[in-house]
Amino acid sequence: MTAPTPFELHPRLAADCVPIDDLPVSRLLLMDDQRFPWCILVPRRPGLTELHHLSLDDRVTVLHEVEAVSLALLECFTVSKINVGTLGNLVPQLHIHVVGRSPEDAAWPGPVWGAGTARRYAADDRDAAADRLRRVLRTSSSRGA
Amino acid sequence: MTAPTPFELHPRLAADCVPIDDLPVSRLLLMDDQRFPWCILVPRRPGLTELHHLSLDDRVTVLHEVEAVSLALLECFTVSKINVGTLGNLVPQLHIHVVGRSPEDAAWPGPVWGAGTARRYAADDRDAAADRLRRVLRTSSSRGA
Repeated sequence: MTAPTPFELHPRLAADCVPIDDLPVSRLLLMDDQRFPWCILVPRRPGLTELHHLSLDDRVTVLHEVEAVSLALLECFTVSKINVGTLGNLVPQLHIHVVGRSPEDAAWPGPVWGAGTARRYAADDRDAAADRLRRVLRTSSSRGA
Repeated sequence: MTAPTPFELHPRLAADCVPIDDLPVSRLLLMDDQRFPWCILVPRRPGLTELHHLSLDDRVTVLHEVEAVSLALLECFTVSKINVGTLGNLVPQLHIHVVGRSPEDAAWPGPVWGAGTARRYAADDRDAAADRLRRVLRTSSSRGA
């Protein structure tokens, strides 16, 4: 019997993001780019590259996670719109972007993907943003939302 | 008693796309841009602007529709990757892009949204593409896939 392949975050995602929390299926990351409140969900299922590779159960759970993260972004930041995207043209590991947008942001109304260059957070601001999202998500999940 | 608001396609989507078929929840459109095999699912539910506005049942059905359209694009076109996105920064009506991508396409590895200018199909080619997708989707749905 061989051991199952462990989940490992793609090095590009590890370099560009900081972890926020582990949700039931996905590792939740904050993109280190202060231009946009930008989360990334990475299902902890090795070897998947497309949304339709997820099992049906996982897919439904990931949709709940996308909803929870969308609502947390709307609560924690001054954003009016959520963009959700699964691309993976550069990083093959399946990951789902959930991005808070507003008409005042640096790429509006265009997509955030491929828009200019990331502006990293100051470490304190980044940790504060991750903490705020984690707290809101844990509160909503303990309410069963 | 007031009559329920009927579903009406946003005029921008009507102008940029041709209809392929009505799936259980969504109207399926083909973007009239021969640079990319590009489908758009528009849930026939008036007034929604965000993915998380869909009821849970509808959301699961729409995920099935996204999967069916992804597989149909992979079957009908020379593409190696599927990009799925819900943006709505320009067109508020909830709609989900499902786009077949390949390293040879005009925007790779960037996103298709905001990439250059659409190149419309010749009418015959556009109808042939829509027909092919409709046929494959109806076959897979009659197989219960």
